Amino acid sequence: MKISELSRRTGVPVASIKYFRREGLLPAGRATAATLAEYGEEHVQRLRLIKALTTLGGLSIAATRDVLTAVDQAETTDGTLRAISYALPVPVTAASAGDPDRDAQAEAAARADVADLIARMDWEVADSSPHVQALTTALRELRRLHADYRPEGLVAYAELAHAIAGLDLERAAALGDSPALAEQAVIVLALSGPVIELLRRLAQEDQVRRRSLG
Amino acid sequence: MKISELSRRTGVPVASIKYFRREGLLPAGRATAATLAEYGEEHVQRLRLIKALTTLGGLSIAATRDVLTAVDQAETTDGTLRAISYALPVPVTAASAGDPDRDAQAEAAARADVADLIARMDWEVADSSPHVQALTTALRELRRLHADYRPEGLVAYAELAHAIAGLDLERAAALGDSPALAEQAVIVLALSGPVIELLRRLAQEDQVRRRSLG
Repeated sequence: MKISELSRRTGVPVASIKYFRREGLLPAGRATAATLAEYGEEHVQRLRLIKALTTLGGLSIAATRDVLTAVDQAETTDGTLRAISYALPVPVTAASAGDPDRDAQAEAAARADVADLIARMDWEVADSSPHVQALTTALRELRRLHADYRPEGLVAYAELAHAIAGLDLERAAALGDSPALAEQAVIVLALSGPVIELLRRLAQEDQVRRRSLG
Repeated sequence: MKISELSRRTGVPVASIKYFRREGLLPAGRATAATLAEYGEEHVQRLRLIKALTTLGGLSIAATRDVLTAVDQAETTDGTLRAISYALPVPVTAASAGDPDRDAQAEAAARADVADLIARMDWEVADSSPHVQALTTALRELRRLHADYRPEGLVAYAELAHAIAGLDLERAAALGDSPALAEQAVIVLALSGPVIELLRRLAQEDQVRRRSLG
């Protein structure tokens, strides 16, 4: 199909398709003339994936490129899952500086809480995991706001998060080994976040309403 | 304290403090001269809250203003919780257009899935809830990517999300009725999202590693 048809099929404007081409997110079409290219179903599927990652997943163009590269290079489902897990952008990286003494104390306390939590949960995570640092930052900021989680409170959340990750992995691992299914694994891992968040918000809405009426 | 001290205490640059003042996020200090103002502990706390909402919570300036207004106007904890629940930005609003016929089918199917889920969970949510529309959009996009959740799969996620929202509300409701505690309620509702997401990512990392090694 021509680029205009590809645009119509996916709802992605022609200018955006050209942009994704230039940024290396979308493979070239088959050249049929100096200025014309023919696109196939693989381009439709790839464009929908790009759109889902950038809009629903909230990924930057650079992060999307990293995830797509990981998908294209992985040879097994587990390799794909691992590559994707590390390539996905980390939700919180914001750091802040205040009183240096208090900051150091809050940072140390948050770091200890995270180490304690990981030990209690018996989680195997790399020392260099970006998620460990991000969670430390999040807990440090909550401490500075005097809204710190007690360790047992964190464990309650962690157990629910663990159950959710189990559902994610079951879905992803059931998909098999083909490249098309690797794309599905990305979708599950990258997009279950927004779905969970919306379900939590709906449940929150329900429980707030019941409290207000009660 | 002077604005320079307020900046040192909170780690927020003076230019940003002035910006938050102009945008109406931070109350004025007590004027001590034509160009000088005196700030207090309430400004320190409010600035930390603004920083947490905009960095950890990922809220825009406009969304932050809405949340702070809701906090300042609410008279009871339940009123505060309700106002905050509606003022917080909705995670997913991205809409997309593709083939109009297929889109209408996918939209209708996603809408039915959401209604079915809410009925199964016995959730009380407003017809006009922004979360219902956002979840419909997310599920529609997942359908277009052929990664749709089966209703029973969604229920499994929803039950975990419901348990998480229960933990959030317990924390928030335990805080009492004072304005300072209303700020804590915002923190709990707005910032538990990133914490949950990071816990899920850590659990995902653990489970992916165990699969790869096993």
